[in-house]
Amino acid sequence: MNFKNKVGIEAAKFVKDGMVVGLGTGSTAAFFIKELARRVREEALTIKAVTTSLASAELAESLGMLILPLEEIDSIDLTVDGADEFDPDLDGIKGGGGALLMEKIVASLSKDYLWIVDKSKKVDQLGRFPLPVEVIQFGAEHLYKKFEEKGYQPSWRLNGEAEKLITDQKHFIIDLHLQEIKDKQALALELDETVGVVEHGLFINMAKSVLVATETGIDTYKRKDK
Amino acid sequence: MNFKNKVGIEAAKFVKDGMVVGLGTGSTAAFFIKELARRVREEALTIKAVTTSLASAELAESLGMLILPLEEIDSIDLTVDGADEFDPDLDGIKGGGGALLMEKIVASLSKDYLWIVDKSKKVDQLGRFPLPVEVIQFGAEHLYKKFEEKGYQPSWRLNGEAEKLITDQKHFIIDLHLQEIKDKQALALELDETVGVVEHGLFINMAKSVLVATETGIDTYKRKDK
Repeated sequence: MNFKNKVGIEAAKFVKDGMVVGLGTGSTAAFFIKELARRVREEALTIKAVTTSLASAELAESLGMLILPLEEIDSIDLTVDGADEFDPDLDGIKGGGGALLMEKIVASLSKDYLWIVDKSKKVDQLGRFPLPVEVIQFGAEHLYKKFEEKGYQPSWRLNGEAEKLITDQKHFIIDLHLQEIKDKQALALELDETVGVVEHGLFINMAKSVLVATETGIDTYKRKDK
Repeated sequence: MNFKNKVGIEAAKFVKDGMVVGLGTGSTAAFFIKELARRVREEALTIKAVTTSLASAELAESLGMLILPLEEIDSIDLTVDGADEFDPDLDGIKGGGGALLMEKIVASLSKDYLWIVDKSKKVDQLGRFPLPVEVIQFGAEHLYKKFEEKGYQPSWRLNGEAEKLITDQKHFIIDLHLQEIKDKQALALELDETVGVVEHGLFINMAKSVLVATETGIDTYKRKDK
């Protein structure tokens, strides 16, 4: 069994009957969704699910799960998602799958928020993974130039036809190839304040715990409350 | 001649042959667009125009002006737009016409940025005019509730059919009925950092000058460089 499958199954154990669950996006989250669907079916659990992407909604529905629109739930008990990098503070980069905006909205509504990853995602400092920035289509070329001038090494996220990818919420994604992010809070703030930026892939102070699959088992990290 | 017409005509005098001009949105900006179109026609000016809304693009094109997509210009020499309120620092609230996002993007690319208003828009403190916040449709109900809990007195911006208005960039608008904004920088930052908020109508440190039509003439305010 591969690493991703292992943490996906482990994470599904955290789901209790009656919960509202947020379903993440990407290959690792897909294993969680499959295992959760199996439990719902075999244990006859009553689970309400909300989703972080159209792709995850399709997967979950194909497995017989009911996906509710966000406006029909009051809050989310637990969201399980992947991450592209995480650091010792349990801050991370997400958005490699292009769903960062919906992922962040769902995360912001979740009482408990768990990342499941394989050990390659654990880093001392964020930034080797390109930082995705979701931007308004109108004026995006100018934002791209601005990132170039700042030395952020931008690239357009493309779809399978080598055209600019359009996200589920109809924006573009610019990936910043930073190599290292020395001050993640300052960069997050700078991007938050940049006109035309909808959201960025820095998830700071959001994940409560991270399950990491290794050769020998699963390591669990918990956020230290400050 | 009404106040709005008077400042619209005055602002058009700032346009020089060969400029790239940003066209604002709303009833006052419409007078500017009409006067600029007249000058372009009668004085055979070569003007490249970019627009802050589909409505203004339609108006300008109906008057024979050529509108370029933002990606085809390098920068904007002058943008002229209306404002819903402005204070003694020349900071203001915009978005009553629903175009705040595109207006802010165009403003951020403009070397010179001018507001044209009638004197009713001049206030000592911002906030009597409802502050528009453009938000992602996904999860918007939860953001609305959050604003309610904070005491921000939100209301949905509606269209002519009393449904939620969808902006040119496909988002919703929530208007915050704050009455007074004591710390505009802090509120701007809070909204910038709120997940699901695309942009807000606080335009801080953006307008370089404001032309105000009064009974007796036109008052000009210029930003003091700090």
